Amino acid sequence: MLEQIDLSKKMSKEEKKRRMEVLQPELGRLQRQLKEAGIPVMIVFEGFGAAGKGYQIAQLIEALDPRGFYVNSTASESEEERMHPFLWRFWTKIPAKGQIAVFDRGWYRKVLLDRFDKTTPENEVAEHLQEINSFERQLTADGTVLIKLFLCIDKKEQKRRFEKLMNHPETAWRVTKDDLKRNRHFGEYKRMNDEMLEATDTDCASWMVIESMDREFATVKIYTAVISALRQALLEKEERVRAETTAAATAEVATGTAKSKRGKKKQTGKPEEEMLSFDMLRASSLDKADLTLSLDRTEYKRELDALQKRIEVLHSALYRKHIPVVIAFEGWDAAGKGGAIKRLTSHMDPRGYRVNPTASPNDFEKVHHYLWRFWRNMPKDGHIAVFDRTWYGRVMVERVEHFATDEEWQRAYQEINEMEKQLCSHGTVILKFWMQISKDEQEKRFRARMEDPDKRWKITDEDWRNREKWDAYKTAVDEMLMRTSTTYAPWIIVEGNDKYYARVKVLRKTVEALEAALKRKA
Amino acid sequence: MLEQIDLSKKMSKEEKKRRMEVLQPELGRLQRQLKEAGIPVMIVFEGFGAAGKGYQIAQLIEALDPRGFYVNSTASESEEERMHPFLWRFWTKIPAKGQIAVFDRGWYRKVLLDRFDKTTPENEVAEHLQEINSFERQLTADGTVLIKLFLCIDKKEQKRRFEKLMNHPETAWRVTKDDLKRNRHFGEYKRMNDEMLEATDTDCASWMVIESMDREFATVKIYTAVISALRQALLEKEERVRAETTAAATAEVATGTAKSKRGKKKQTGKPEEEMLSFDMLRASSLDKADLTLSLDRTEYKRELDALQKRIEVLHSALYRKHIPVVIAFEGWDAAGKGGAIKRLTSHMDPRGYRVNPTASPNDFEKVHHYLWRFWRNMPKDGHIAVFDRTWYGRVMVERVEHFATDEEWQRAYQEINEMEKQLCSHGTVILKFWMQISKDEQEKRFRARMEDPDKRWKITDEDWRNREKWDAYKTAVDEMLMRTSTTYAPWIIVEGNDKYYARVKVLRKTVEALEAALKRKA
Repeated sequence: MLEQIDLSKKMSKEEKKRRMEVLQPELGRLQRQLKEAGIPVMIVFEGFGAAGKGYQIAQLIEALDPRGFYVNSTASESEEERMHPFLWRFWTKIPAKGQIAVFDRGWYRKVLLDRFDKTTPENEVAEHLQEINSFERQLTADGTVLIKLFLCIDKKEQKRRFEKLMNHPETAWRVTKDDLKRNRHFGEYKRMNDEMLEATDTDCASWMVIESMDREFATVKIYTAVISALRQALLEKEERVRAETTAAATAEVATGTAKSKRGKKKQTGKPEEEMLSFDMLRASSLDKADLTLSLDRTEYKRELDALQKRIEVLHSALYRKHIPVVIAFEGWDAAGKGGAIKRLTSHMDPRGYRVNPTASPNDFEKVHHYLWRFWRNMPKDGHIAVFDRTWYGRVMVERVEHFATDEEWQRAYQEINEMEKQLCSHGTVILKFWMQISKDEQEKRFRARMEDPDKRWKITDEDWRNREKWDAYKTAVDEMLMRTSTTYAPWIIVEGNDKYYARVKVLRKTVEALEAALKRKA
Repeated sequence: MLEQIDLSKKMSKEEKKRRMEVLQPELGRLQRQLKEAGIPVMIVFEGFGAAGKGYQIAQLIEALDPRGFYVNSTASESEEERMHPFLWRFWTKIPAKGQIAVFDRGWYRKVLLDRFDKTTPENEVAEHLQEINSFERQLTADGTVLIKLFLCIDKKEQKRRFEKLMNHPETAWRVTKDDLKRNRHFGEYKRMNDEMLEATDTDCASWMVIESMDREFATVKIYTAVISALRQALLEKEERVRAETTAAATAEVATGTAKSKRGKKKQTGKPEEEMLSFDMLRASSLDKADLTLSLDRTEYKRELDALQKRIEVLHSALYRKHIPVVIAFEGWDAAGKGGAIKRLTSHMDPRGYRVNPTASPNDFEKVHHYLWRFWRNMPKDGHIAVFDRTWYGRVMVERVEHFATDEEWQRAYQEINEMEKQLCSHGTVILKFWMQISKDEQEKRFRARMEDPDKRWKITDEDWRNREKWDAYKTAVDEMLMRTSTTYAPWIIVEGNDKYYARVKVLRKTVEALEAALKRKA
């Protein structure tokens, strides 16, 4: 989940101040409503050292009535706590109905710090993650609102902050040897965090990543996330009460659609203007893709030729080593998926790979689970399956066009991650390419296709209609990249305005991944 | 789940025949309705070798229209299947909407046969169980009805059946060396089955154990289970459709109560009379408890004295070894919990144990999760916590008296098992005693208390009222014993009509468990 984050997000002090003047009273108002409604709330701050947890907690509670909340600082376990199952100390600290409990670090220590220190053996990590998920499921099933915030900075920024702290005697004590060690091995520690996020980003308790290089931006994002979640909880409670009243009156029960209203209610009034927009909450680093990247024709030819020859060799090595490979292509219409696939496969042995084009499901596919048709085409050991569009249709076109209910596409992130994890556990190499082009470039290509009699068939009215929904698709793509870029199957964003550059990048990334897989199995 | 099964259940051929004449057409009728409603159905037969899976599948499909179902026999993986993730072959075989897929053995091989054969390493078992749960959750979330049947026989009966098969040349081939090996190590293989059942008995896909010593009984139970599940699915679909219609009309959404109607709809017509009653489906071996067991006073005194001295020694050893112990008491009113607890603790060091009496939750407890007050009282390492009534109130009194919604108590089995598993993983010894007395014995004790001025306070009008609900409580107790008797925290049924016998059994079982725990940690 941390791979596709855009850490460059910023906000000026003035803007933040202006927004907070509206957001703080709004949060205070919500706290009173929650108390009245008897809803317990848990807000967990996790994240890298020096990411600003303390500062942000202080910012958040400024808006709260102190009689209704408390802050728990999760340090190392006390003697007493060590003498109990590790979740005991959190069970005993859950908030009462109407209370807000803020946790400065949550119940993830065993799979983060302790794992890094090797006090948690690797073979116990999975069990602890399951215990954590069970804890969160049990609480949310009971009506607790659980807001999980992960504060993210990069290695360099962390080092800078540590050094700043160490330069002052009154703050130097706050930086421990362990902090510095985790900074030195930032990559490894980040992977552990990422695995934790992946395993605990569940339907009932999802994570919100807070880009925390800039304090002001982070504060406003946290307020936005908390306010949205609390409003949602109040709305759901309201609907439940109304449903119970209705049910009692008419003895009829309507069901299954409450969740699908998530986030749909039209919010009115001033606070909305000061909250970050909905798509900002899940915005990925996609906008940061440098679309000016390009290759000239000579370079292209040379690199392409070398890479294709390399792939030919690797393909045969994979076959001998029984390694299956999945190469998935997604991207905007006319982003160059077809061209890339053609170059990718041109030197492969046709007996060892298959390209699966994905159109709208046919009648037989429609009467099965949406993943069925993809499962059927998963490669066997030693084979390569290329997918031209994929199972990600569930969280893109089916989401945007409402072919899937909100409930369906919302749970699909977890379902898709689970499928890819199973493939990966079996030994499958998974490559997922997102072909990125600008909206202007797309238009240019559409027009070029229209003008070329040989290519006119490639462009339909539907393409133009989809184009009108660019922004809706963009939001969906952002959330997809964030939530399904996993340690075992990360997304690769391909800067596609220049076709030469894009094709070479696809081939190069493929070669790298296959070489790494062969090395692992050597 | 297999510990508290009553395998002696029987039915005459005539009775079965009579019932089947009604149940078969009913199943056929339901198949047509399901087809029309477009609901996919999966029926999985698991269980011990020679438990009668083949026979029972044949019985079941007799009622079905062959155009609407197919049977998958799950043998060892084919070459092709081995070259994919292990769930691939099941994903590719899921039924279309309106179809019924019957599985002769399901997707559990990796955690049963393969685990027993050590082809699945122990450290991969947990991951496979998770993959299985994900598979089942994904399918049921999508609307598939998943019916999981576990056919259970005992070691002796299995051996008898194997021998019978081997005695005829035309059937001898059906018994393999591996079958005989699993029979020889029946206890070990049973534990693996039990762990599989525990881990996959989820809210969305629960198991139905079929006592299969008697074929006729098993067939009728299977029909009952399948018919109930299919009806339930149709009912839920109907409600969903109605809800969507209502929602569209009024733009109002009622929610969260559909599940709580489970199994409540009054069924009318003839088939009901021929199905097993609802409480028979989950009936445990409780009725088999031999309540005539007794001890005379001299024996009692002698045994009690010896056991109490032993407990004194063990208690101090536990303290030194930092082993925490939970001893939970449940049982009918006046079943002798208090008396047993008194004898159990009389020689313990009071600094090392605490008795937690559980009354109705107070106001502060009520505004927390129902498990919170029990978590708070869980013992620290080296200490003993005795609970006089427990968290099982959720699935007994709260279920029967409707203090919890159906949805709440139904998910509680899993929640409770998870809590106990966490305690157990931490190293806690868990003893759970169900104090069993007959209804007559209870009345005798109630009357005796009324007549004794010193004990009259112990008996209230509520006790008499609860007594009137004996049958409803019995159903709840049966289901509780079945679903929460786990390998890590099994229930111990204490035959309690004779107080001497009961107390000695409680102490003896405690001594055994503590000795075993100390030995493990030695």
